[in-house]
Amino acid sequence: MSNNFARRVRKMADDTVVNTLKLASQPGIISLGGGLPNPDLFPVEFIRETVDRLIKENSHQVLQYGPTPGLPVLRASIASYLSQKWGRAVKPEQVLITTGSQQALDLVGKAFLDKSDWVLVENPSYLAALLAFNGYEVKYDTLQLKPGGIDSGELEKKLRSGKKYQFAYFIPTFQNPTGVTWNESVRRQTLALAKQHGLMIIEDDPYGELYFQSVPPASLAALDQGNTVIYLGTFSKTFCPGLRVGYLVADENTVATLTLIKQAMDLHSPSLSQALVAEYLQDQKTYHDQMEKIRVFYREKVRFMMKEMEKQFKNVASWTKPAGGLFTWMTVPGIDSRTFYHEAIKAGVSFMPGYPFYANRPDYSTLRLTFATVGEEQMKIALERLKRLIKRS
Amino acid sequence: MSNNFARRVRKMADDTVVNTLKLASQPGIISLGGGLPNPDLFPVEFIRETVDRLIKENSHQVLQYGPTPGLPVLRASIASYLSQKWGRAVKPEQVLITTGSQQALDLVGKAFLDKSDWVLVENPSYLAALLAFNGYEVKYDTLQLKPGGIDSGELEKKLRSGKKYQFAYFIPTFQNPTGVTWNESVRRQTLALAKQHGLMIIEDDPYGELYFQSVPPASLAALDQGNTVIYLGTFSKTFCPGLRVGYLVADENTVATLTLIKQAMDLHSPSLSQALVAEYLQDQKTYHDQMEKIRVFYREKVRFMMKEMEKQFKNVASWTKPAGGLFTWMTVPGIDSRTFYHEAIKAGVSFMPGYPFYANRPDYSTLRLTFATVGEEQMKIALERLKRLIKRS
Repeated sequence: MSNNFARRVRKMADDTVVNTLKLASQPGIISLGGGLPNPDLFPVEFIRETVDRLIKENSHQVLQYGPTPGLPVLRASIASYLSQKWGRAVKPEQVLITTGSQQALDLVGKAFLDKSDWVLVENPSYLAALLAFNGYEVKYDTLQLKPGGIDSGELEKKLRSGKKYQFAYFIPTFQNPTGVTWNESVRRQTLALAKQHGLMIIEDDPYGELYFQSVPPASLAALDQGNTVIYLGTFSKTFCPGLRVGYLVADENTVATLTLIKQAMDLHSPSLSQALVAEYLQDQKTYHDQMEKIRVFYREKVRFMMKEMEKQFKNVASWTKPAGGLFTWMTVPGIDSRTFYHEAIKAGVSFMPGYPFYANRPDYSTLRLTFATVGEEQMKIALERLKRLIKRS
Repeated sequence: MSNNFARRVRKMADDTVVNTLKLASQPGIISLGGGLPNPDLFPVEFIRETVDRLIKENSHQVLQYGPTPGLPVLRASIASYLSQKWGRAVKPEQVLITTGSQQALDLVGKAFLDKSDWVLVENPSYLAALLAFNGYEVKYDTLQLKPGGIDSGELEKKLRSGKKYQFAYFIPTFQNPTGVTWNESVRRQTLALAKQHGLMIIEDDPYGELYFQSVPPASLAALDQGNTVIYLGTFSKTFCPGLRVGYLVADENTVATLTLIKQAMDLHSPSLSQALVAEYLQDQKTYHDQMEKIRVFYREKVRFMMKEMEKQFKNVASWTKPAGGLFTWMTVPGIDSRTFYHEAIKAGVSFMPGYPFYANRPDYSTLRLTFATVGEEQMKIALERLKRLIKRS
């Protein structure tokens, strides 16, 4: 049967990641690989009470088929939350609920990408976004990511080259995989150039609320005075990923068309999950306390990790110092992460090799580490193991 | 922005259905349109207790990211349930959990369909399956659906013609939209022909458990001794649609590849929903009682509707007498359902016009009616209204 698969499958069915995660789940291995939020942070009692009340009082809605663009109460809650945050009016009709942010990636691919179209991405970019777009057999052009974001000069050159990009896909805040955040002037320049050249931007923002100290610069969507940006958000990092509730914000007409496409993808996202997220967003105290708890928790985690990395890797590697999110990105000159990864597994530590995050030519000397999940003692051991390996190689 | 959409969008963004449903939701209109299960049948107390226990005892799993192919406990429960039902071993590794059955339709499309490929479908077929496959820009060939199923002679002729079909998509049991069920000999002949000609079959079976009197003939998947059939199931009709839990059964290798594709679509389906469905399947008494309740309920509904239709439409229309499922299919010679639908809305009754269920040339004299949702008094009024309209036209 396998000869029967469509052409696109070759570009989607790379099992490197799956195999990597499988290896990492062997006993005795300390994993700095997966980007899972720490489950001890889930507001379990709030969820129990709310879910019980929703099922008791509203079973005809929360267990039944729902509207394709999402439950009205959730679309309204998100619109009101964003209007406040962005300082500009966002209507409920501009919000489309998706089954996690991943579905939004597949959805914009399906809506906008024909075979052999060009997509512009950061270098590196989010692996699972590339996999989603690969399903539409596209080609990529990349913009090198630097400490303050992309280089708007490089962007301008590309836009002037006459090549037609269906869209640019950017993660400007606490990027996965690098942890890099674009500064405000890069954001403004990028938006201005996009408007000038008619470039549509897909802004993916799963981590924006996970800042450690200060609020990050305004999102591209917040700065956008027109319809240049389609914004993707999620509750996977700020609430619970298992609910599979993400959302997309665009102009009303675009949302109407995307709704018809989503209908053919899964009819609608889970109703009970949506109703629960709406309650969470509306309960401002719970939301606020929860976000504070998450921020403090990750701030301590990252502080410890950065201190330890300084001790261990000072002269052998470089790495990013994220101001939020879940990841740091490490470059170890001289290693090849494809083989280095297997040595690390043998030494009892795992991470995500960096190469699958590159749309075109990979840099094999990179790795992604997360500080989100393991405790201090384990973190120390894991980094020591890595250090010994690096010294040997 | 709308000029920017991909080519496939033209074939997916037909808003006839959405507009139809919108019109039907106006006050005062009795709807025989939507295929929603009756929410009074949801086992609310079982769900409340189970969900509460799952969140309390297992929050780290049911609220967290889960494995892409589905929670192991649910894959195992479905495998064991099907092994018993089909009388042949089904392994958990052959089961892939999907976000409703609709996602499975999109998934097989993405996995197997390149642009301009041929797909073989019943005439008529399930509208939302056609929309999903349209996303892959395919062409359709159709097999006329008759009271006992398709005509295997017609199938053989098509297979001998040399045209290459990527797959056939069939709903052999209590079909949506017609309510037709294939008899056993059509099933066996179809399977034999498919094997002989190397035709892959996607069997969609959302209604098989919703029989009124006797168990329907074995599914194609149950009869399949090889890897000819990919089977799609769902808990939307046997439990609750709002949970968005469906599944797909295929050989292990195919499931492994489909898992990589699903990963790019939504990472995984909702964890809490999956854990809840696993408990439901494992609690054999609850499952059995619930299914009995559903069957008795719909049996009474369909009996009443058929009796009333006999009174009202005896000499002006013909319709199917379903042995299960949610729908009857009515043919009214002389009407054009595109205009007739709007007259019906004015008269205070709605249904699904039949024409969007045809892959190629529609029959405009058809409509789909459901007996699932309205009470006897309302059903009587709705059918009387329809009758008056038909007499006038």
